[in-house]
Amino acid sequence: MHPGDGATGGPTAVLHRYEDLVAYECDGYTLEKSLPAAVVFPKSTEEVSRAVKYLHERRIPFLPRGAGTGLSGGAIAQGGEVIVSLARMNKLLSIDYLNRRAVLQPGYINLKLSNSISSKGYYYAPDPSSQATCTIGGNVGENAGGAHCLKYGVTTNHVLGLELVLPNGDIVKTGGTLDSPGYDLLGILTGSEGTMGIVTEITVRILKKPQGVKTVLALYEDVNDASRAVSEIIAAGIIPAALEMMDKIAIEGVESGNYPVGYPRDLGAVLIVEVDGIEEGLQDQIDHIIAVCQRNRVREVRQADDAQERARWWANRKTAFGAMGTISPDYLVQDGVIPRSKLPEVLAKVGEISAKYKLRIANVFHAGDGNLHPLILFDSRVPGETERAVAAGSEVLKVCADVGGSITGEHGVGIEKMEDMRFIFNEREIQVQTDIRDVFNPHSLCNPDKLFPKPARCVEVKKFVASTKE
Amino acid sequence: MHPGDGATGGPTAVLHRYEDLVAYECDGYTLEKSLPAAVVFPKSTEEVSRAVKYLHERRIPFLPRGAGTGLSGGAIAQGGEVIVSLARMNKLLSIDYLNRRAVLQPGYINLKLSNSISSKGYYYAPDPSSQATCTIGGNVGENAGGAHCLKYGVTTNHVLGLELVLPNGDIVKTGGTLDSPGYDLLGILTGSEGTMGIVTEITVRILKKPQGVKTVLALYEDVNDASRAVSEIIAAGIIPAALEMMDKIAIEGVESGNYPVGYPRDLGAVLIVEVDGIEEGLQDQIDHIIAVCQRNRVREVRQADDAQERARWWANRKTAFGAMGTISPDYLVQDGVIPRSKLPEVLAKVGEISAKYKLRIANVFHAGDGNLHPLILFDSRVPGETERAVAAGSEVLKVCADVGGSITGEHGVGIEKMEDMRFIFNEREIQVQTDIRDVFNPHSLCNPDKLFPKPARCVEVKKFVASTKE
Repeated sequence: MHPGDGATGGPTAVLHRYEDLVAYECDGYTLEKSLPAAVVFPKSTEEVSRAVKYLHERRIPFLPRGAGTGLSGGAIAQGGEVIVSLARMNKLLSIDYLNRRAVLQPGYINLKLSNSISSKGYYYAPDPSSQATCTIGGNVGENAGGAHCLKYGVTTNHVLGLELVLPNGDIVKTGGTLDSPGYDLLGILTGSEGTMGIVTEITVRILKKPQGVKTVLALYEDVNDASRAVSEIIAAGIIPAALEMMDKIAIEGVESGNYPVGYPRDLGAVLIVEVDGIEEGLQDQIDHIIAVCQRNRVREVRQADDAQERARWWANRKTAFGAMGTISPDYLVQDGVIPRSKLPEVLAKVGEISAKYKLRIANVFHAGDGNLHPLILFDSRVPGETERAVAAGSEVLKVCADVGGSITGEHGVGIEKMEDMRFIFNEREIQVQTDIRDVFNPHSLCNPDKLFPKPARCVEVKKFVASTKE
Repeated sequence: MHPGDGATGGPTAVLHRYEDLVAYECDGYTLEKSLPAAVVFPKSTEEVSRAVKYLHERRIPFLPRGAGTGLSGGAIAQGGEVIVSLARMNKLLSIDYLNRRAVLQPGYINLKLSNSISSKGYYYAPDPSSQATCTIGGNVGENAGGAHCLKYGVTTNHVLGLELVLPNGDIVKTGGTLDSPGYDLLGILTGSEGTMGIVTEITVRILKKPQGVKTVLALYEDVNDASRAVSEIIAAGIIPAALEMMDKIAIEGVESGNYPVGYPRDLGAVLIVEVDGIEEGLQDQIDHIIAVCQRNRVREVRQADDAQERARWWANRKTAFGAMGTISPDYLVQDGVIPRSKLPEVLAKVGEISAKYKLRIANVFHAGDGNLHPLILFDSRVPGETERAVAAGSEVLKVCADVGGSITGEHGVGIEKMEDMRFIFNEREIQVQTDIRDVFNPHSLCNPDKLFPKPARCVEVKKFVASTKE
């Protein structure tokens, strides 16, 4: 492996020894592990292009990797691919406050962007829970969301331009300016999970920080009362910046974690509702939200006294996934989407799945946009329990798809949900997508065998209404 | 032509006589005219599918048409194609207020949707100036915008699902539920100008009507003062629902039209700024906007007294294009996008182009999002003047592209701007897009020879940074 032949270099530009590679055998999806052939660390677009050309000429498969926080296995070298790490491409290239955009290298860390522009009164909206470590490049690959995406949208709503090294090493640009004519390539690249090339530069929208932020915490005995409050808040025409919910087991987890709030242990659900914007009018929205909570049998509801209290509530919520480790040896994070109106129905079905597989399931939701995160608790040391957890997760996704939802809100498909794609798409619709992929990636060199299921398995046709042979 | 063989019918299901076809020889782009081979009027998805299968088997090209209000010639049968009119597929199929979505046939008229759901307190946000006649299907094809898209986004931000008859007659669905995994097909279909198939059913987001709407009118002597006010309003963190501007010649036009407001004839520019949302806080934003206008040498600025006055201002603005007919025998509408900060620079260049081609150019802007509509006034009876107007329009688009903007904000590329696509894309990037088109439309039967320039013309390479042969 000499991808940097004659130009790049330094002894750490390529990792190839077992003890170095082992750190790259999985990402945030830990149920599958596989060693890459090597890991390369380009420092510029040109170095990525050179490395990719080298690999392309030899038909050696490869895949891009950011911080490796992805939860669906998209950055796992399942076929022993070469990993192209973007860790050294971590610069903020330019900021244009007047036209509200920033240009970044893909290895730049999400939270650093908001921190860098905060003193000028700006921030970057998408805020995945992993934002202190995950990279903007990874966010683009997965079309990452976050707690505040209810009002402001997910990554695709904030990406204005991309530079991409195609799987043959060519460097292309799309967007970067304003409304592009022709097809929406930015849209199709965002969330393509590294199957169309390696993103090497990203132009994002930055937003003016809202003048005011106010946060309400509501404690419920019955999770269905909380669900009804969620629906009523949205129905009132209020678009909160965030509307988060945790159920009983999730509360047990976060209260055992590093940032306990002190929630009573007998609660059925906690809601966090946040509004932001121009200061005037905010308190009115908060009063409306509190009234809705009270109408729906809340036990206690109150507004954050100050920024510290708000930060405490959020620190507790944002570490919900990790906190599960304190109440269970292992856990599997799921990520489904449902229409808000189906929350009580789906929660009941998740309860049935929990009973069927004899596994506890905690529920953490971006409730406002119907994005569920069931956390399936299991013990990998018990024979068969891992398999039961995986099967239970897939069954939860089937429930989401069946009520008109989706199998992923923000974590992507990766390795984990390739087969679950059939809950949403039939063979023909999958084929249209792989045909589009092949326009970019004709030799299947870049992140091969991810995102789409293998063809030719007999399945139920769900989405295509009718189909005749061409 | 018997596309409805054995099933559809009625004597008006197919038009084929010259006197009937002549009404379909152009759309809102009137500089090119061509008769279709026939016009068919299917009433259902199945009828569209049957007609398309018939045409596909015989390799007869065809194209979809809504109300024919498109301004870039996308619905012109330039090669004598068969027109598939969606005029009879004009039903509102269902409304789900709880989950905020409506399902429509493509021939449904834009404004009818807001009118149908208004009594329940809802509306549909994208509002092209032609909204009283244009169809939702056409809006999807062109990714239509409108005055209120600054805050709420264009059509692609409101489309949740599509049913599509592929160019071989197959019926497929995408989206329609929630966040879809895999590639963003909804995004790539929206704005694809009928080159990927015929949309037969559309699921859109409906919004709760804002509690309050307030509107400010500001009259300027100097258009540059108005431009600076626009920048300052946005820089203040206010996102108006609409921020519209008209220059001196545009004011002359609208004041000669059917809805004069009574603007003084010596004005350099008029701004309309509208904010909406929760009632509290709105007046504060209006006061801020008025203060910004005053700081920027406004001659007169005031708030609408009531809904009637607001409606008068909007009626005047929304008929700006048509009103040009009262001050010029012919006019050509252009549609470019620029960074807001470049407004004064681009206006100066448009002035130079006007002088160079000896043609008056009126400017109507969605100023908040940098979307310009230069209206090039000409007289087609004067030999050579039409050609000069077309050349001036193209030069305006070049200026937009050169400052980092785009050649279309909301009117599409159609026939009109195929060659101007080269201001934005190089051959390779165009080829990626036509390769994607061919996944859907492999025989180039559906709206052929639109949207993209013909390959193999030697051009300046602008967007691709580097390129090597595969």
